[in-house]
Amino acid sequence: MPQPAVVDIHTHMYPPSYIKLLSSRSTVPYIYHPTPAETPDSDPRLIILASDDDPSRPKSSRGRPVDSTYSSFDQKRAFMRRHGISCSVISLANPWLDFLDPDSALKTAQEINNDLDAACAENNGSASHEGLKLFAFGCLPLSAPARDIVSEIQRLKSLGHVKGVIMGTTGLGNGLDDPALDDVYSALSSTATLVFLHPHYGLPDSAFGGPEVVAKSGHVLPLALGFPLETTIAVSRMYLSGVFDRHPQLQFLLAHSGGTLPFLAGRIESCVAHEREFIANGGHRQGPQRSIWDVLHTNIYLDAVIYGQPGLKAAIEAAGSVDRVMFGTDHPFFPPLGDDKEAKWLSVESNKGAIDGCFPEDEDAKRKILGGNAIRVLGLDL
Amino acid sequence: MPQPAVVDIHTHMYPPSYIKLLSSRSTVPYIYHPTPAETPDSDPRLIILASDDDPSRPKSSRGRPVDSTYSSFDQKRAFMRRHGISCSVISLANPWLDFLDPDSALKTAQEINNDLDAACAENNGSASHEGLKLFAFGCLPLSAPARDIVSEIQRLKSLGHVKGVIMGTTGLGNGLDDPALDDVYSALSSTATLVFLHPHYGLPDSAFGGPEVVAKSGHVLPLALGFPLETTIAVSRMYLSGVFDRHPQLQFLLAHSGGTLPFLAGRIESCVAHEREFIANGGHRQGPQRSIWDVLHTNIYLDAVIYGQPGLKAAIEAAGSVDRVMFGTDHPFFPPLGDDKEAKWLSVESNKGAIDGCFPEDEDAKRKILGGNAIRVLGLDL
Repeated sequence: MPQPAVVDIHTHMYPPSYIKLLSSRSTVPYIYHPTPAETPDSDPRLIILASDDDPSRPKSSRGRPVDSTYSSFDQKRAFMRRHGISCSVISLANPWLDFLDPDSALKTAQEINNDLDAACAENNGSASHEGLKLFAFGCLPLSAPARDIVSEIQRLKSLGHVKGVIMGTTGLGNGLDDPALDDVYSALSSTATLVFLHPHYGLPDSAFGGPEVVAKSGHVLPLALGFPLETTIAVSRMYLSGVFDRHPQLQFLLAHSGGTLPFLAGRIESCVAHEREFIANGGHRQGPQRSIWDVLHTNIYLDAVIYGQPGLKAAIEAAGSVDRVMFGTDHPFFPPLGDDKEAKWLSVESNKGAIDGCFPEDEDAKRKILGGNAIRVLGLDL
Repeated sequence: MPQPAVVDIHTHMYPPSYIKLLSSRSTVPYIYHPTPAETPDSDPRLIILASDDDPSRPKSSRGRPVDSTYSSFDQKRAFMRRHGISCSVISLANPWLDFLDPDSALKTAQEINNDLDAACAENNGSASHEGLKLFAFGCLPLSAPARDIVSEIQRLKSLGHVKGVIMGTTGLGNGLDDPALDDVYSALSSTATLVFLHPHYGLPDSAFGGPEVVAKSGHVLPLALGFPLETTIAVSRMYLSGVFDRHPQLQFLLAHSGGTLPFLAGRIESCVAHEREFIANGGHRQGPQRSIWDVLHTNIYLDAVIYGQPGLKAAIEAAGSVDRVMFGTDHPFFPPLGDDKEAKWLSVESNKGAIDGCFPEDEDAKRKILGGNAIRVLGLDL
């Protein structure tokens, strides 16, 4: 019996054109290439979070090393083989193209989307990759005028290997509840384009007690708490402002199992129900018109990047069905820190282990989360 | 067969002395008494969150009305009877005594703790309350010198109805990972005093996109997301800084089912395992020495104030056992907004419904969460 397909829907790539773009910059986000005098660590450094750009450290030790796992399709395939992944839906990593000059954003997005589509086509057409398949989430020129964004959403339908778009939480600069996004949401809805929503900006340092507090534990507070909260806040703002009322066809896939939305959905629902600002005014109740649970069951998919059974169970329960949760790895982030370069990645194994642990006897549920749901929802031809 | 005990461990009271204290102030936290000219809403207004104190609104409409449910023991008992609650462990509501002048803090804490103990004693000794029992979490003079805090922790053991303390997330002003708290943690450990950890300060408005974004949906963002994140950040900072390594006997009960800790514990564990700052240095791994799961299973209890099954299941799963989760109501907050003053409270029924829904066939589990765990952990004599 053939092994069921394992599809990784949360896996990032920095194509060469994107590495070049970041290397040309000197403010966040940027890639710093240490000088020979700054060795022994001679890998370029990727500085993508404001908290990475600590001026008290030399640039050669800020951020994280960018090795070939970030930009090499061979490395991506090696990672897939090592972990039994048969298909990866690659996406540009944060912060995507959020920082681009409005004038150049559309052209850059088109180039990168074409590159991604071509790379997937080349991979999938090759006989030498043992059947490993690649698809992509495209990127949008969100700093460009809305008409450019809409035109790229429509154009992406002509790229056969692009199966949706990845997006951050800032939208056009004012968050995802910005009424100026309505045309974008209409275009996403009418083209049935799935949005993979991913955090980048985290929370302000002051939320954690200030930069000194954050610095004590490296990236843990921004990554472990800031990222999930950013996603939760973004989706909550969409929900509270009625985006899902006005655009009931929107389809969002939320990174990191929805941040904390599955756990907090009940509290959000309760706070809305008890909010005096939303009391009916002239017979019409203010605020969101649909239950957050209805939105979760209708408009939202969750990845399974949550590293533990309690979270994964809550994600499945909040999503309303095992049909709405999809395996992912977050590669190339969270690599093993040990010396064994051939070891399986703890970050991947803990997510796979949570799926196994939730469904020790239910092969059908495991098959859906590991790949079946992604194949169905994204329409992957494997 | 007698009904099993229902114990509410998350239920607040503003004793008359506390109402008087807040009424004497004009900056957050304070109680504003509208003038007759400002009627028709003549209830005093409680302004406890910075976001409540919106200068664009008249004071008579800021915050929320303080009616007799905040300070009346008769009202507390009526609420208990209406919802089948046999015992309440009352606690001062946020922000407790965090704002007090250091010189007066110890004396005020002693007075309020004595008042709470006396009120519980009077209630429990009375034949006229149909067996309804009251106990209390005391408050600590956290703005006072550490020796005053320690002395009050020790003194509280002599107050027979005080079964622990309630505390916010600021500690002595610098958070719960402040090394200056070590003497306080030692006193809490040596006296086996449970800490009920409760949020108050939320997140800065900038985390939500600014005050204008927050204002659009009343209290929803600060209460639904800011409060749970505050708790999660506070406990994570304790964990990351080694508080639970140095004080392995600490017992914390976390409000709102731990904020988001049950959902994010796996991600925290993974981020710690992948954090370069924590890589072993000279053979000794840096950072927290214990697994977050071990801390959850050993040092942490969770209330069941989470308003939905997905969250409650995750809380129980993360706590490691149905023995570590306890029913609560958050009374007098989240009252019904409708006209039926005799109606059961949605906020209470949704939490009870989640417990019923998680354990449709398991009366023993329900009995533990609804009261058995609180009786055992707090040593309640019912």
